[in-house]
Amino acid sequence: MTERLRIVVTTHVEDRHLAAMAAVDPRIEVAYEADLIPPPRYASDHQLPPIAGDAERDRWVALLKSADVLYDFGPAALADRLPGWRRLRWVQTTSAGVGEFARRHGLLAREDVVITTASGVHARPLAEFVLMAVIMFGKDLLRVQADQRRHHWERYAGEEVAGLVAGVVGAGRIGSEVARLLRVLDAHVIGVVRAVDGRTPADVHADELVAVADLDAVLPRLDVLVLATPHTPDTAGLVDARRIGLLPPRAVVVNIARGDVVDEAALADALASGRLRGAALDVFQTEPLPPDSPFWDLPNVLVSPHSASTVAAENDRIVELFCENLRHYLAGEPLRNVLRPELLY
Amino acid sequence: MTERLRIVVTTHVEDRHLAAMAAVDPRIEVAYEADLIPPPRYASDHQLPPIAGDAERDRWVALLKSADVLYDFGPAALADRLPGWRRLRWVQTTSAGVGEFARRHGLLAREDVVITTASGVHARPLAEFVLMAVIMFGKDLLRVQADQRRHHWERYAGEEVAGLVAGVVGAGRIGSEVARLLRVLDAHVIGVVRAVDGRTPADVHADELVAVADLDAVLPRLDVLVLATPHTPDTAGLVDARRIGLLPPRAVVVNIARGDVVDEAALADALASGRLRGAALDVFQTEPLPPDSPFWDLPNVLVSPHSASTVAAENDRIVELFCENLRHYLAGEPLRNVLRPELLY
Repeated sequence: MTERLRIVVTTHVEDRHLAAMAAVDPRIEVAYEADLIPPPRYASDHQLPPIAGDAERDRWVALLKSADVLYDFGPAALADRLPGWRRLRWVQTTSAGVGEFARRHGLLAREDVVITTASGVHARPLAEFVLMAVIMFGKDLLRVQADQRRHHWERYAGEEVAGLVAGVVGAGRIGSEVARLLRVLDAHVIGVVRAVDGRTPADVHADELVAVADLDAVLPRLDVLVLATPHTPDTAGLVDARRIGLLPPRAVVVNIARGDVVDEAALADALASGRLRGAALDVFQTEPLPPDSPFWDLPNVLVSPHSASTVAAENDRIVELFCENLRHYLAGEPLRNVLRPELLY
Repeated sequence: MTERLRIVVTTHVEDRHLAAMAAVDPRIEVAYEADLIPPPRYASDHQLPPIAGDAERDRWVALLKSADVLYDFGPAALADRLPGWRRLRWVQTTSAGVGEFARRHGLLAREDVVITTASGVHARPLAEFVLMAVIMFGKDLLRVQADQRRHHWERYAGEEVAGLVAGVVGAGRIGSEVARLLRVLDAHVIGVVRAVDGRTPADVHADELVAVADLDAVLPRLDVLVLATPHTPDTAGLVDARRIGLLPPRAVVVNIARGDVVDEAALADALASGRLRGAALDVFQTEPLPPDSPFWDLPNVLVSPHSASTVAAENDRIVELFCENLRHYLAGEPLRNVLRPELLY
């Protein structure tokens, strides 16, 4: 199908990952200019590289223009120019929620460029975060930890996950894995999806499956609202002040989607006033979360620095997925995890 | 089998629980002197009642002597006298780990008195505590929470439960449930039991099953050591300084058994020096944990006030178990959850 396939890797990977890519096929050449790429701040960091000056910009432009395939987008500052480089055929991203970024930078207009996401790679660590948060609030753990800090011992009765009603908005691989784990602990899970499209609850490991159009009827029933939806224009502002008001006071909000899905000011108000029980938030409208955000100090809020999805083994998994896709690509077979432009995920 | 069966309830229950007991059979009479019993400090509190003075003591003695069946032991101050009251035939306890208490007060010497425990009732909430703790340490959550308190945002890579090696000491209903949940998240679970006795790992939801005599060989392999063993003379001091030294520095200790199972001073030293990664402790040698205990302030320790097993729905479950046992008792059938005096559980 192809004479040469030039892959430009724009994010930090280990030597073994480069070797794994190259080993897929002799037609593959892998470009990785390590000095352009910031060292990872933590294992499997996928910071888009900054550009220090004109010389670096020129090097990046030359590099990106030469790519048949990009492993991650490269510098955000050049993302608008990606659609103009005609050699580009495929971008493998290191994140799942990249639809909005790709749309904004015009990449979805290129019908001859396919984007594949890291969808699925983050499902388990995100589902573990949700499980942890749900058990923590069931055990009133933030209060227990405050007691620990003042050396105060007070026995109490918590509550089990069994019987809790959890609404999981978004039932892709992440939402389905969240649902599966919550149901192992006998929670009652309501999957909330854009459109049911003939799927059954069991298809997404839920007890019930409803369309997002029916969300308002679901909210008053919830002990836990999990936001695991992709960030698209449809989901921005989905959980607005009115919908927050529909949640019962016992409800906990867990956001592993994007900050824009929630009206943060309304959520902070509801949490501060006790109209909501608590929240575990991994994502925020502005990241890093500004130092004056009310979330930091709310005693019923867990602030996680957008790392719930990140595990040290992540790069291994994404590279494994990419190598599998490379084999498909060279064989002219359909790729896994293709971003659907009409859905943005 | 019996003309009348007089049940004396010595711990706080709700009216509906008393009604459920009485409804089992017309031969049953239920005594519950509410003014002798301290109000619960939290739902399903099972504090042994204190005795305020001689008048209360006399009332308790008369009450306990009149019992065919006790629902919980009654005042600790009178526990030594229980074996002398010949009418007593059966004690249903509200806890699982009561063997040592029963032995110390001479109750095991009465071959005509059966003790049934609440074994199994606490399995799920305890297993949820373990799961929560394991995910928390995987996500370095205590550090993340310290960052939250100083409004500091720092992304990082955690680790998944998948692939962690967890040793679960004690594979009764609690240990088995811990093992089952950890394996749902693809941990590798090594069950450690008094004697394997022909059981397979699958019998206790583990990947491997070894005798406690082989514990030393297991410890260096562990990412997580879960103590879920009953408190017996055999397990006191089981995790001593030498064995703590056999754990690798990445190991986390979760104690949901009894404080006496661990050498607390050695554990605190190992945690303070970083020779161990962390600990989640629900039980302590002295409870309430003294204000000057080093555990309170260690940044890698979660102190839980012996409440990991306690959920609001607990009394419903124990009473349900008791009512089932009442039916068996009146029908002359074997009871569930009989304490085996030779094992103390």
